[in-house]
Amino acid sequence: MQSSRPPAEIGMPLHEVDTPALLVDLDAFERNLQRLAQHAAHAGVALRPHAKTHKSPAIALQQIASGAVGVCCQKVSEAAAMVDGGVGDVLISNEIVGRQKIARLAALAHRARIAVCVDDRENVAALSEAAQAEKVTLDVLVEIDVGANRCGVSPGEPALELARHITGAAGLRFRGLQAYHGSAQHLRSGEQRRAAIDGAVLRARQTRDLLHHHGIQCRVISGAGTGTYPLEAASGVYNELQAGSYLFMDASYARNRSDDGSPFAEFQHSLFVYTTVMSRAAEQRAVVDAGMKALSVDSGLPTVWGIEAAEYVGASDEHGTLNLATAARSIRLGDQLRLVPGHCDPTVNLHDWYVGIRGDRVETLWPITARGPGF
Amino acid sequence: MQSSRPPAEIGMPLHEVDTPALLVDLDAFERNLQRLAQHAAHAGVALRPHAKTHKSPAIALQQIASGAVGVCCQKVSEAAAMVDGGVGDVLISNEIVGRQKIARLAALAHRARIAVCVDDRENVAALSEAAQAEKVTLDVLVEIDVGANRCGVSPGEPALELARHITGAAGLRFRGLQAYHGSAQHLRSGEQRRAAIDGAVLRARQTRDLLHHHGIQCRVISGAGTGTYPLEAASGVYNELQAGSYLFMDASYARNRSDDGSPFAEFQHSLFVYTTVMSRAAEQRAVVDAGMKALSVDSGLPTVWGIEAAEYVGASDEHGTLNLATAARSIRLGDQLRLVPGHCDPTVNLHDWYVGIRGDRVETLWPITARGPGF
Repeated sequence: MQSSRPPAEIGMPLHEVDTPALLVDLDAFERNLQRLAQHAAHAGVALRPHAKTHKSPAIALQQIASGAVGVCCQKVSEAAAMVDGGVGDVLISNEIVGRQKIARLAALAHRARIAVCVDDRENVAALSEAAQAEKVTLDVLVEIDVGANRCGVSPGEPALELARHITGAAGLRFRGLQAYHGSAQHLRSGEQRRAAIDGAVLRARQTRDLLHHHGIQCRVISGAGTGTYPLEAASGVYNELQAGSYLFMDASYARNRSDDGSPFAEFQHSLFVYTTVMSRAAEQRAVVDAGMKALSVDSGLPTVWGIEAAEYVGASDEHGTLNLATAARSIRLGDQLRLVPGHCDPTVNLHDWYVGIRGDRVETLWPITARGPGF
Repeated sequence: MQSSRPPAEIGMPLHEVDTPALLVDLDAFERNLQRLAQHAAHAGVALRPHAKTHKSPAIALQQIASGAVGVCCQKVSEAAAMVDGGVGDVLISNEIVGRQKIARLAALAHRARIAVCVDDRENVAALSEAAQAEKVTLDVLVEIDVGANRCGVSPGEPALELARHITGAAGLRFRGLQAYHGSAQHLRSGEQRRAAIDGAVLRARQTRDLLHHHGIQCRVISGAGTGTYPLEAASGVYNELQAGSYLFMDASYARNRSDDGSPFAEFQHSLFVYTTVMSRAAEQRAVVDAGMKALSVDSGLPTVWGIEAAEYVGASDEHGTLNLATAARSIRLGDQLRLVPGHCDPTVNLHDWYVGIRGDRVETLWPITARGPGF
């Protein structure tokens, strides 16, 4: 398709990259990659980064080479793209419902170790049937709702009941608990995040202990995101971290604060939308060629990297409008700028390629093969 | 790429379509298509629908077969996809800035009639140079800012000055004025939209008359969108309509009201995101498999088609959370629902295929070849 032409060539200077393009600053990216890997290793917990952020096996393989045990995905289509790209261990940290999806999921287990989450008995039966039909074994985690109020059964007895059901189902192997607290990730103060994760840890521990008491081993308690992973890593309960955004960061995560109120700065911005000034018809305004079809505005507008006097104030479909204070009025038609997207995951989903840059030179191009609505 | 597999096969019953999928109800779509074509014909103005909405030459060719003179695009990549798909006349209703983009634009003019907008003298020089290098002629419109405060020079003298510049530039042919009032489209009352378009018509008329007075013919005055097109069509000034969303409608346009306060109902919803209930772990809650990677929430959350007691209350990346009032609690795991997206254009941009249905059967699949950030 038309959109699959990359916006750059390897070796090109940055200023020749066509816009809008999704840039990865490789130095910052590699520092982020190593930093979380080291944190997990130091804490003695497994790292299974979430591939829903980057949607690219080229990146997943680097995470695994740095010590990750595998990746998470949210969709069967994402998992298939990862397995096609050489990833050998995928946890779908989500429920998979529907005959076709479950059949594709089971078929993947011929080529990789596949695990999936459940919160419903009928779904367990459907997974068991598909696994038997394919003559494979699927690992299954019970998802418990630890405060996000989205998917997952209640902690305690409902989780025990579902786990028992799994242990009795042919073709399935109970692996443990999925206990991700999504809505805690962007709580802005360290105190708020600690309170939320304390609650999640309590629910996960009680559920684990209840299952152990009934002779059901939870080998894995998986969860955590970029906003809270130090808490889960230190909890003594979680033994697998699922952070994803740490690789890239975004303007929303940059608004999180540490316990002492300082910016939450473990990771650096490595992901940018590269854009061109395409209209300069009014003195105080520049219009750039990156709007909602090049970046997601669900978690706020992007910021203009390195130019405080330029504020991105409005996104329309194909345009971004910048207000220029006096200090930024030297911006000219044709100038190229970097934007820090408000939210990395859905921004990545709009693009087909990463343009990896080292300094001002294009070093690599990674295709975003798991992009799409996700069947 | 993985994502290019379609979510359905032709002939399939609707309930077998994989989710999330972008459905087009062909009966409603065809009524919308004919309705605007008839309005334009009756008003004696040309129709040049905006392909930024649908991004699919398969649809553009149907618009042209129904009387449209060609289509609009916002990006060179969109125009290339249209020309590749057999469209012979494209207006890029936007400024194109940057050496590579302009070179590709000029090359397209070997294969189709191509027009583009400008709001800057340097940009005119760059277009002229590229047109001469390719030995083609590009039609050029001066974009004037008629109230949207985005791109475009001020009406009157600045437009005259730029038009003079174009008439003197080799390889370029001045065609007229681009005078689209984007921010008027979603003003909710008929009175507000009328006031905004009255202002736009005044500015376009005065600019046209000024150019005519100086011997420069404006053959085309182009603009209008789904929210305001009857006003431009009746203005006696605009002679080309650029509406796009009329084909599909969306939840945001559905909130527009007519002069008498009744719903703005010329067009029917024909675009839906088809989704599966993937979690039903709490009585008052259903989670569906369509979140921000399957629909755009920039103009509000989607509505659930035909089920008033189910309200889509939260979108995360891959999930949508529905609150279920008592009357909707019979919704079960695995049920498939239709969502009306808040905003059609950026929602379409997330998908690779339209699944065209007639009643409950898949009749056609149209690829969305102009999808993407848009170089």
